[in-house]
Amino acid sequence: VNTERLPQLNKPLALDAMGGDHAPAMVLEAAALLLRESPELELVLVGPEDQLEPLLESHGLAGEARLSLRHAPEVVAMDELPAQALRGKKRSSMRIAIEMVQSGEAAAAVSAGNTGALMATAKFVLKTLPGIERPAICAAMPSTGEPTWMLDLGANVECDAEHLQQFALMGSTLAEAVSGINRPRVGLLNVGAEAIKGNEVVKAAAERLAASPLNYIGFVEGDELFTGRAHVIVADGFVGNVALKASEGTAKVIGGFMKEAFGRNALSKLAGLVAWPVLQGLKHRIDPRRYNGASFLGLNGVVVKSHGGADALAFAQAVRVAQRTAAQAVPSRISEQLDALLLSRPET
Amino acid sequence: VNTERLPQLNKPLALDAMGGDHAPAMVLEAAALLLRESPELELVLVGPEDQLEPLLESHGLAGEARLSLRHAPEVVAMDELPAQALRGKKRSSMRIAIEMVQSGEAAAAVSAGNTGALMATAKFVLKTLPGIERPAICAAMPSTGEPTWMLDLGANVECDAEHLQQFALMGSTLAEAVSGINRPRVGLLNVGAEAIKGNEVVKAAAERLAASPLNYIGFVEGDELFTGRAHVIVADGFVGNVALKASEGTAKVIGGFMKEAFGRNALSKLAGLVAWPVLQGLKHRIDPRRYNGASFLGLNGVVVKSHGGADALAFAQAVRVAQRTAAQAVPSRISEQLDALLLSRPET
Repeated sequence: VNTERLPQLNKPLALDAMGGDHAPAMVLEAAALLLRESPELELVLVGPEDQLEPLLESHGLAGEARLSLRHAPEVVAMDELPAQALRGKKRSSMRIAIEMVQSGEAAAAVSAGNTGALMATAKFVLKTLPGIERPAICAAMPSTGEPTWMLDLGANVECDAEHLQQFALMGSTLAEAVSGINRPRVGLLNVGAEAIKGNEVVKAAAERLAASPLNYIGFVEGDELFTGRAHVIVADGFVGNVALKASEGTAKVIGGFMKEAFGRNALSKLAGLVAWPVLQGLKHRIDPRRYNGASFLGLNGVVVKSHGGADALAFAQAVRVAQRTAAQAVPSRISEQLDALLLSRPET
Repeated sequence: VNTERLPQLNKPLALDAMGGDHAPAMVLEAAALLLRESPELELVLVGPEDQLEPLLESHGLAGEARLSLRHAPEVVAMDELPAQALRGKKRSSMRIAIEMVQSGEAAAAVSAGNTGALMATAKFVLKTLPGIERPAICAAMPSTGEPTWMLDLGANVECDAEHLQQFALMGSTLAEAVSGINRPRVGLLNVGAEAIKGNEVVKAAAERLAASPLNYIGFVEGDELFTGRAHVIVADGFVGNVALKASEGTAKVIGGFMKEAFGRNALSKLAGLVAWPVLQGLKHRIDPRRYNGASFLGLNGVVVKSHGGADALAFAQAVRVAQRTAAQAVPSRISEQLDALLLSRPET
């Protein structure tokens, strides 16, 4: 897990203490870890006070000056319909965490809860940036070199060329701000590298991107997600979600095969023992927890979604992503880039 | 590589000797391997006689009674536009191999050549089965248990719900015929398991499949490609292609990480040496060559596409897929299933 020194913020981060399969315990554990690691960090845990209060003690957080509680009596279930959560749970932990961003009390909100409800609530409370039609979900992927950011990972299952162009601009801004990459290379995910390949939306988006001020490098294929050829990979939310999950599924099945192979008999177990440090290093390198934390881009504020199954280490990583994104003022940077783009574009 | 006894055919298989990055040598090598392995198999190598004739000797194939040559003076380049190949190369090796299927001389055609040109030529020469709007590309994926077949892998980048339904029927027929699975479990690739998830096309296809005689199990997600939950996974060609390539890319990057990890220093090299047999077994298990051979389904005849970068072992596997598909008369089985479906459907 990346423990490099994080940029300072002058506001706390709001953590939805009730979202995710292992909440609230894993959120408290992550909070303890982060507060030890970053001496300036301030956190607010949002959730039912009567549930959270007793947990502070057991996590060594009682009396911690940089941690406070914010009461939220309701919890959005992992399988609740977004519209239902939005209408029916106005005092949920995720909603109040996001409202703290809206009011300026918190620098960012982080939740491992229901993705659809989180996105719907974030859109409703924070609103999209002027000119942005749809927020997108963006995350860093494991890569051999500089990180590759991919979006959209599932917020928008039907997109037109303009949406894809906006995703490209937002992803490029995030990569520049958070990874410090100058003029990130932006690729469009497609079924082939040639200009004639792909569906009409992708072809139209390619034309727009080629004419934009972004550093557009053309089409990338599904087997180039991890090669570092592009710093930002743009796809509609259906394709991006399937590509991400297909990669996760492949890594998991290979991990399972390895475990099986090294456990087959006494000799292979011995080999596994000898290879243990190397295998652990490898496991660490592709550990999805190190890449946890997907940013909702295109909103008037920073919201980061953690994987629902996250443990404390993974959740802490999502909080670090939120901290960097907020410290770099990504939403206002996106707004500026968008204004520049709109100004540079001839009237149509 | 699977060397189980193959079903008998009373016709030869036509191999495009000129398709692929390593043709024609790798095609001859594969032919030699297959003829040794299957005592009843007959093969025809299609390509320029003056080029192929001298190679027979060097591959120990001179005078082999079960191998013949068929002259084809032209070769379709790997980057040639499909329409151009179709119009301009009427005597290409891939076209003549497919024409041999059309005329009844060959049981199936196999090529590692240009995918787009091969599909366009196969459609033009063989025509689609009555009622099939679009042929699809279908291949078996590595799986922990019974094979999973996925389609479409890239022939159709824009599909409607009826296309997806036809893909489901074709994939199910192939899985039943070639893998011997009774009533294969058919899943639709989507971004979530709940009925409200996905785009309009996928939702409409789900309704059609639920009402069809197929063993439809609902939505599967990108991380379930290799779990064996579905025997057949249906997607449009854009999504299917990206999912397949994302998996290949992930396996490749993990392989690269492993090589790097075991090569880091003297100690890790020693560990790699001890773990060598286990790592080789693992490599064999996920070796993409073992899964080479994608069937073009929905045509009046059997055409199998090998990966363009295939070596002899991989190409031989694609030929085995063609042999099984032809021996099980997959095209006429698809036709029967389609008739049954059309008869069972109320007029709309």
